[in-house]
Amino acid sequence: MPGEFDFIKWVQSQQPATTLVPVPAGDDLAVLNWPAADLLLVGVDQGPRRGSLRFRGPLPRQVGRKAMNRNLSDCAAMACLPAAAVATVAAPRGVGADYLRELYQGLRDAADPFGCQIVGGDTGSWAGRLVLTVTILGRSGGIKPLTRAGAKPGDAIYVTGPLGGSIRGRHMTFEPRVALARELATAFPLTTMIDLSDGLSRDLGHVCRASGVGAIVYADDVPVHADAVEVARDGRAPLEHALHDGEDYELLFTVTPPGPTAAATRVGVVTPEPGIWIEHAGGRREPLEPKGWEHAL
Amino acid sequence: MPGEFDFIKWVQSQQPATTLVPVPAGDDLAVLNWPAADLLLVGVDQGPRRGSLRFRGPLPRQVGRKAMNRNLSDCAAMACLPAAAVATVAAPRGVGADYLRELYQGLRDAADPFGCQIVGGDTGSWAGRLVLTVTILGRSGGIKPLTRAGAKPGDAIYVTGPLGGSIRGRHMTFEPRVALARELATAFPLTTMIDLSDGLSRDLGHVCRASGVGAIVYADDVPVHADAVEVARDGRAPLEHALHDGEDYELLFTVTPPGPTAAATRVGVVTPEPGIWIEHAGGRREPLEPKGWEHAL
Repeated sequence: MPGEFDFIKWVQSQQPATTLVPVPAGDDLAVLNWPAADLLLVGVDQGPRRGSLRFRGPLPRQVGRKAMNRNLSDCAAMACLPAAAVATVAAPRGVGADYLRELYQGLRDAADPFGCQIVGGDTGSWAGRLVLTVTILGRSGGIKPLTRAGAKPGDAIYVTGPLGGSIRGRHMTFEPRVALARELATAFPLTTMIDLSDGLSRDLGHVCRASGVGAIVYADDVPVHADAVEVARDGRAPLEHALHDGEDYELLFTVTPPGPTAAATRVGVVTPEPGIWIEHAGGRREPLEPKGWEHAL
Repeated sequence: MPGEFDFIKWVQSQQPATTLVPVPAGDDLAVLNWPAADLLLVGVDQGPRRGSLRFRGPLPRQVGRKAMNRNLSDCAAMACLPAAAVATVAAPRGVGADYLRELYQGLRDAADPFGCQIVGGDTGSWAGRLVLTVTILGRSGGIKPLTRAGAKPGDAIYVTGPLGGSIRGRHMTFEPRVALARELATAFPLTTMIDLSDGLSRDLGHVCRASGVGAIVYADDVPVHADAVEVARDGRAPLEHALHDGEDYELLFTVTPPGPTAAATRVGVVTPEPGIWIEHAGGRREPLEPKGWEHAL
């Protein structure tokens, strides 16, 4: 039975020293030379979602990949560059070293393309199910971070890809939109950005609340993913899935018009009065209630 | 039943904007103005320990306090200043908002005296037991971080307080030695430092391995806590408890001699050859095997 320290030793052997992280992981804390010009962005995301059953099915490498990609998607949402991460694993007892190594490889599969280093962590086992928590450090890298606050009436609302039905597989395999976020933030006067994890209806609500505005979404303009059509066999319309499913990990942003004509789709407009509406063909409007996921506590 | 977003809103209302954190928490990531002269230190510690039963007994406020203090103790171990933290809670379903607020207050009880801000987090519920994970960001603040590597043969080995029997209560109520660490690092040529979480025998092993050295510990010089005498009723000698129990959260450091004569106790000496020995009165030596806690995976 391998121990925690064997695993830590193995992890350390995977990590090269770099300019950002002169001392490899394995001390009480990792030491980073933070670039003086960069704002530091930090956030954390924990594995257990929707009652934790999520993690029973997929392979550990996929689980690791997704956990890191959720955090990289948060970096995209702020238009910052992923710089470093720390991760904790509470593993079901007896899960074995191979499982942990696969989990770690999954984290690396996602982080490596961004030059994002895993600089520390904490590994243990317990009687419960797997909990995999990733904390991400991002750097502004010359672009002012985009928050959820700042949308102005008249701003156009965009999304970066078709939505809905991610449960068919995309929720595990999505690519975080880091490069696209930074291209958009450089080329256009974006006012807010968020990644679509909770579903368009709920995530747009976050933006509107933080900005003190409302929004109209044009039903015919919402890009509906083929997966949403597929899952619509459950009786709910594809558009409903596109608006509420969540885990798309596309970006939603607001921009002073005119916004981009490629690379993203305009789906609505910011209004001065609070409230989010969906406008159907012919002009009929109804409230767009958030039906995306909220954790009951 | 309160939801995740109500709780996040409440947490946000607790957090003032500061120079370090101009934008309050609640976005995809928190944004920090990292001081240009400071190295950034980062580490993470997860709640479930020793099979997770630990968290059944104590009140949530104590649990929160301890989780933060473990991380603050890691800052002490590196002689850095706690700057900011992010925390995740996976709460047993139905635990209620009061429990979560108490947990958060416990985190704040520990962090506030150090001006350490909780800048973000992730809260959810699940079918499992409580998991509380804290990631800490420290800043060097004018003192070069002390790692576990750097002990030289002839260095004196010190600990900052009496050891053993922490299970009687100190493992929940300890005060992280941040100020003491920085005073010592300023006044003396320390070569390594670590906090005693796994037990002297194991933590000294971490230092020796990282430094490529060995050590002799003088049995008569190890400060034994009254709690170690109390728990010694189990048949193991108080010294055994002092050497192996762990969760003392005192500091162990090595220093080019002569070291301090107050504020810490000299317990041994660094040797060129690997191996850790305990030397009893009269000169008898035996190997000091690590018996502190290692997680089986």
